[in-house]
This record gives sequence, C-alpha cells and structure tokens, in this order.
Amino acid sequence: MNTVAMAPPPTIAPGLDASGPVAADLEEVERILAHVLKNKYPRVAEVVDHIQHYRGKRLRPLLLLLTARACGRVIPAHHVLAAVVEMIHTATLVHDDVLDGARVRRRVATVNAVWGVQTSVLLGDYLFTHAFHLASTLDDARVCRLIGAATDRVCEGELFQVLQRGNLDMSEEEYFDIIDGKTAELTACCCHLGALFSGAPTETVQALIRFGRCVGQAFQIADDLLDLIGEEKATGKSLGTDLEQQKPTLPLIYLLQKGDKQQAARARQILHGSEPRKRDLLRPCLLESGALDYARRRAESLTAEARAQLACLPPSPYRSILEGLTERVVHRNA
Amino acid sequence: MNTVAMAPPPTIAPGLDASGPVAADLEEVERILAHVLKNKYPRVAEVVDHIQHYRGKRLRPLLLLLTARACGRVIPAHHVLAAVVEMIHTATLVHDDVLDGARVRRRVATVNAVWGVQTSVLLGDYLFTHAFHLASTLDDARVCRLIGAATDRVCEGELFQVLQRGNLDMSEEEYFDIIDGKTAELTACCCHLGALFSGAPTETVQALIRFGRCVGQAFQIADDLLDLIGEEKATGKSLGTDLEQQKPTLPLIYLLQKGDKQQAARARQILHGSEPRKRDLLRPCLLESGALDYARRRAESLTAEARAQLACLPPSPYRSILEGLTERVVHRNA
Repeated sequence: MNTVAMAPPPTIAPGLDASGPVAADLEEVERILAHVLKNKYPRVAEVVDHIQHYRGKRLRPLLLLLTARACGRVIPAHHVLAAVVEMIHTATLVHDDVLDGARVRRRVATVNAVWGVQTSVLLGDYLFTHAFHLASTLDDARVCRLIGAATDRVCEGELFQVLQRGNLDMSEEEYFDIIDGKTAELTACCCHLGALFSGAPTETVQALIRFGRCVGQAFQIADDLLDLIGEEKATGKSLGTDLEQQKPTLPLIYLLQKGDKQQAARARQILHGSEPRKRDLLRPCLLESGALDYARRRAESLTAEARAQLACLPPSPYRSILEGLTERVVHRNA
Repeated sequence: MNTVAMAPPPTIAPGLDASGPVAADLEEVERILAHVLKNKYPRVAEVVDHIQHYRGKRLRPLLLLLTARACGRVIPAHHVLAAVVEMIHTATLVHDDVLDGARVRRRVATVNAVWGVQTSVLLGDYLFTHAFHLASTLDDARVCRLIGAATDRVCEGELFQVLQRGNLDMSEEEYFDIIDGKTAELTACCCHLGALFSGAPTETVQALIRFGRCVGQAFQIADDLLDLIGEEKATGKSLGTDLEQQKPTLPLIYLLQKGDKQQAARARQILHGSEPRKRDLLRPCLLESGALDYARRRAESLTAEARAQLACLPPSPYRSILEGLTERVVHRNA
C-alpha cells in the first residue's frame, strides 16, 4: 500500500460552497479527467490511476473556472480546458519527482518511488500528449496556440532553472524569470482561457492574465519558502530538495546578495560543505538576515497587485473567492 | 568535445536528387527547426543546439514530404508539419536515452551523458511542447488532433513496453501492439498529413496511412534486430540495451515460444543469469533457431505490403523513392 496517510485535499479557495456551481464544475472536470485517462492496458491503467492520489489543491482548474464564473458564465469548453491545465501541471509534477528524486508527494509514494525513473518519464510524456490531444478536441486553434505557448515557457523555465543549479550568484531577476516561466505562465494562461471563453472584453482578459501571473509568482515564492522552512508532516512531501539540488530561491538569493556579509559568508560555507542537514543549519541565517521576511513581503505585494486587477470585475461571490484565494496562496503551510 | 566521430547522416532514401525538390524541402524543414529551437538563454540554447548532432535519417520528414510530392504537391504547411514530427521523434529519442542510460547516439555523446538525467527529461518536454505549439501555428484544428492522437499512442506504446520489462512470456501480438504504438503510429501519421495536405482523395490517404504503418513496423523490427546483432561501430549508438533492459523483441519472442525447446531453455538460462555479455551468448541460439530469419521475413512481408499500397499513386520519381525507401528500411546496418 502506497498511501502514507489519507487526508482530504487542502482547500485553497475559502468560501467555496460545497454544493455550489464551482464545486459542480470541479466534479465535471474530475469526470473528464477520469474519462481521458482511462487505458486499455491494465498495467498502464494502474500507473495512470496512481496519480489520482496526487490530487491536491486543483489551483489551476479553480483559477480557470472562478475566472470564468466571475466574468459571467461557464461553458462546457471551460471544463475541458480545466482538465487540460490540470493534466499539464500533473505532467510537470511527475517529471519534477524524477528531477528531485522525491519519494513522497501529498502523503503518497511517488510514481518514481513505486515504478522508477523510466515509468515516471513516460507517464509524464503520456500526460503531456493527452493534455494537448484533449485541448485539440475543442476544435479551436486558439486554444492549442495559447496552451502550446504557455507550456513552452513552463518547460523553458524549468530547463533554465536546472541549468542554473549550483549558481549561487544567480540574480533576483533571473529567479523571477524562472518562476514566471515555470509557474506563473500556466496560472496566467488559466485566467486567460477562463476569461476569453466566457466572452469577457479585452481589457478584462488582460487584467485577469496579470492577476493569474501575480498569483502564480506569489504561489511559487510561498512554495519555495515551504521547501526551506515548512514541515514535511504538514506539506506531505519531501522538503529541502531545492537546497539538495543547489537551486537558489528568493530567500537564499536575498541572504547571499543583500544580507549581512558575515551571515552570507556563513551561508556559502554551509552550502559548499558536505553536512547533510543544510536546511536546519541555514535557518538561523535566513531568519536573522530578514531573508524570510523579505520573500514573504514580495509574495504579499504580488497578491496585493493581483487583487487590484480584480477591480475590473463586477462584485460577485466568485470575485470574492478569487480575492480570498490570493490570501491563501501565500499564507499556507501545505 | 562530445563528438566521437563526424560522419554524414546515413541516407535512407536512395534516388534522392541532392539538388532536387525534396532536398530543398528538407532544407526548408531545417530552417524551421533552427528558428523554432532558438532560445534566449545561452545555457538553454547550448543544450538545445546539441541535438543537432543527433541529426539522422530524417525518416519521418522524408515520409511526409515524399508522400506529399507523390500525391501531387507540397505546400508550406508540409514543411512545418515535417518539422513538428521530427521534433516529436527527437523528444522521444532524448527520453529514450534516459530510459536506456545510453551514452552515445549517432556517434555523439547523448544529452544524458553530458548534462545528466534532469536536463534530458526537461529537454524532451521542451521538444514535445514546442512541437505541439508549432503545430498549432498552422491554425488548423485537424492538425493538432491528428498529431495529438498519434503522440498519445506513441507514449502509450512506450509506457506499455517499459511496464512489460522482464516479461519473457510476452506474446508476438503484444510486441506488434507495442511497435505499432511507439513507432508505426507516427510514421503512419506522417503519411496521413503528407497526403491530406496535398489534397489527395480519401482512398489514397487511407492507403498511405497503411503504407506508413507497415514501414514503421518494419523499421522497428529492423531496429530491434540491430540492437541484438548490429555493430556499434556502424550504428553509432549503444546496442544490446533491449536485453539489458529485459525488453523482449521479435527474434527473442520467437526463440522462446516457437524455437527448439532446448535452445529456448538455454536462452532463458542466459537471460536470467548474471553474465554481462548476454548479447554475444544469445547470438548462436538466435541464429540456429531461425529466429533472426523469422524476424527478417516478417519485416520483409511488411515492406511488401507497404509497396502494394503505393499502387494507388500515379508513377513518379517520388513514388519510386518511396519504394526504394521500403527496401532500405529493412536492409540497413545503421
């Protein structure tokens, strides 16, 4: 049995009515995912089914569907698109687990841990192609172009980050370039598709793209903070992988470049050393230098910017949920 | 320096005029590939550029372009599509090298050998998404659907094969299911797109899909034969990986299930043993049982079936080149 502990998926959108329209939208998305991911080979089906355990916050489908509802209407294409973006995200998670050698995700053994690297690489590919194929069934060339362009940037961001491993002189600008590609591009695309397919005017679509981009960047900063100082018990996944992989994230970049010289030197010493508990050793430096506070402030300023974009929408329960979601994106422990 | 030895790419289509229209078509495809694969980050560009060394037979672009010419005309969309299928194929090669732990491909160090697993996984993803995005620029939903469906089956075939590793009781039917997915689906798709976009009538399109499917299956049988009995010097890549990975291919399946009982028992003993030179030890059994001949005959009967499909086309130099290509697909040493 691969399940470490059963827990309900965390809620990232407080205010969601469990019997309301968005909950029904999400159920429809689950039905589409289950249908698209069926496979005739029992062995393949077993592996594909395993990723249901990864079910998490469904942030991307939520952004797409809430944006659509806040713009006035949800049409069947929205459900399909929400399934597409979730599959793309899951593909990147499956491959991330190969990159990080992660054994546990959302309290469940990873595909990598159970079936190994080969199966994980191919399962990720399988999810990517099925996502693109599903997108093409909408018979709308715009969809394939938008999703293709966004996914290009996701992969470019991930590739750039991996090739920057070990570069402790990485700039803040490069960090933001990376997270904008690997995370914010897809969340921006979700809001773009949500607004576009609900027939929103161009200015609203543009504001919501900006909203999705800010939310994505803030989410990634918060994620990187959790990797440095979160608790594995709460997050349900392996932490400290960024340090193990020598990937500098915002707090570390701040500490090394803007922190007290002595603390920065101590941090470099820890990072270059062979001590395995780098995460614990670095924590005092990160705390005392103000690096953690700095990263939190940057995330909060992004969510404030995100909320400002929502002014283009008429007041509605969905706009309120989107507002609440921006708070939850940064203030979370999982 | 990663280059083991420089050699011109092998020709798989004898009769091609180096200054003729198909050569010009291929040059246009190279221009598109170079343009699409440019990247603003020097580190990313370096990795992406490395795959130019993998440049091989260009079988898939050739099938697409020759089919189009044989059907009467090549339009600009054909060049784009030829670049798309080559990128999808290259993505699978990059990931195959991760799966096989291959160090050398086409006489050049693999991305996996130079930059490692992480970069290889992400580069493959990058190629997949750029291929889909490029396909979407044609603004034709059919294209995205055809390519999406074909690539779904490619990944399904690869995933099924990996999950069947070590299953020495795999049936011939399962083997053909695997190669039809992982190889023949994409070659069939090439011929489909070539014929469709040149405006060929439905029956011609159907015959050419069948042609591409037979060529793909024959090509894969020949490839699997090379892995068992080819020479690394000639092929320019690591061989014997199917045995190392415990992937049964046609000759082995024949030997184990239809060969002389004693030879089959000897083969099982070798496969279960810890001896590293399994390939050399198995060769006498494969030869004496007629397993190699059997696989060659199956490949030849597929190419005969492929050639029969070409009867739907009017005589032309392109039809002749396609005929010659079917021969070359099975009678090759690289």
